[in-house]
Amino acid sequence: MSLDGEYDPDNLFARILRGELPCAKVYEDADVFAFMDIFPQSRGHLLVISKASHARNLLDVEPAALATLIAGVQRLARAARAALKPDGLMVSQFNGAPAGQTVFHLHFHIIPRYGHEPLPGHAEGGPANADELAALAKTIAAEVS
Amino acid sequence: MSLDGEYDPDNLFARILRGELPCAKVYEDADVFAFMDIFPQSRGHLLVISKASHARNLLDVEPAALATLIAGVQRLARAARAALKPDGLMVSQFNGAPAGQTVFHLHFHIIPRYGHEPLPGHAEGGPANADELAALAKTIAAEVS
Repeated sequence: MSLDGEYDPDNLFARILRGELPCAKVYEDADVFAFMDIFPQSRGHLLVISKASHARNLLDVEPAALATLIAGVQRLARAARAALKPDGLMVSQFNGAPAGQTVFHLHFHIIPRYGHEPLPGHAEGGPANADELAALAKTIAAEVS
Repeated sequence: MSLDGEYDPDNLFARILRGELPCAKVYEDADVFAFMDIFPQSRGHLLVISKASHARNLLDVEPAALATLIAGVQRLARAARAALKPDGLMVSQFNGAPAGQTVFHLHFHIIPRYGHEPLPGHAEGGPANADELAALAKTIAAEVS
């Protein structure tokens, strides 16, 4: 899918937000929602999305929604750091399929890095175990402040 | 360098902001500064940084500086899209050396993607030609609104 186009109200993340699909939720407030990536590239890989905005990507999003979203990314990055003690944290955000975007609801990835452990491609390892993701979500959620 | 530590006022980007080192500047306002990455991973790879904040990374930065910085990232991403017509745009932000951070002044990468052209590693291809970077900077700058 190109950078142009309409927001699909039935994309995976919209359905997660509506409770139609399960997820390992880490955090939710009036503006943002955070949950574990089901295809983690490292231990603790999570996603942060806007609840109200129907933006497909960074180019589309309203300024106010973007400001609250990035504040949420910072909040969750701090929580992931406190919970998991990684050596580093990558933040990434993809716009358009050629850039790696697969779900067209604006989202930021937070990917903890441990030493010089290589980073696998997204979905390379298949989906994570649901119980493990739920446990990680709980561990990170306990550090959100 | 770990996620902890002090801001080094003589890091490369601080020196660029003070005009002590050259760069191919794309945009500047009261809050943010954007310039071409000297080791581009694709045509039009640019960096957006905060002018006032002495944050090393996303974990450190003050909320107000983060909000203006991400608004700048959006502004420059839109300009890069209009100027270069890429098929996608990657946004990335690294915290700590194990995550790929090499300059410890908070910055966001904007990396245009073209078709399924592979993404080389950072600095893999060596520094770009300065005249080419200056020309790209001018092309993108013309589309900033």
